[in-house]
Amino acid sequence: MKILGIEHVAIVTESLEEAKPFWRDVLGISHHSTEIVESEGVKTDIYETGRGKIELLERVGEDSAITRFLEKRGEGIHHICLEVEDISVAIRELRRRGIRLINENPRIGAEGYSVVFIHPESTGGVLVELCQRS
Amino acid sequence: MKILGIEHVAIVTESLEEAKPFWRDVLGISHHSTEIVESEGVKTDIYETGRGKIELLERVGEDSAITRFLEKRGEGIHHICLEVEDISVAIRELRRRGIRLINENPRIGAEGYSVVFIHPESTGGVLVELCQRS
Repeated sequence: MKILGIEHVAIVTESLEEAKPFWRDVLGISHHSTEIVESEGVKTDIYETGRGKIELLERVGEDSAITRFLEKRGEGIHHICLEVEDISVAIRELRRRGIRLINENPRIGAEGYSVVFIHPESTGGVLVELCQRS
Repeated sequence: MKILGIEHVAIVTESLEEAKPFWRDVLGISHHSTEIVESEGVKTDIYETGRGKIELLERVGEDSAITRFLEKRGEGIHHICLEVEDISVAIRELRRRGIRLINENPRIGAEGYSVVFIHPESTGGVLVELCQRS
């Protein structure tokens, strides 16, 4: 597969309103977009650093993966997303190598990207998302 | 301050030898350098994604911050590093805003960069490093 770079780092927050002043006002990185991703049960507030984005996440509803993360680990970095040239090629290669995926087929994430999540069991404890821009 | 981009994402591993095949062979991102940073008590194996690096960390010695992290949280993402144009300007601004820093003056990190760490208490649970290239 061909990796093109770090697309974003996602950070779980208890509250976007409380978290965003550090990123927006203290670091001064520019707001890119805000979006609710129903399929993931999250609201995301996205900032552009110039090379890679910061995605702040807040849960939407009770049955969100974010709820379980907050209960277990508290606020902090949730995953890293790497951009790939071709998500289908990447998934095929990951399967062939026996890498454990969270979703077996690409799904649509924030910004309409096609994404796949790799289980931390196969990466050394890190939730890794791969995405292909649409 | 002026943020230039995500410089790297640092990942704590029990063993670089066990962790690196995922990043190097499965994702196929290229090895950049390997370095022991005595002041931090870490050995770091650095990979270049094309936009931002992945820094795998392994402890060196027993009195490493990595040891405490592993005991408390296990393997996973340790911090995110953002590149700034001027580290002195950044530190001055952070102090003025009452942001809690881990080191009050810039110190020399991997690759000879001048770095400062911001305490997770001031960022919403994320250890944030700022660096200026030398």
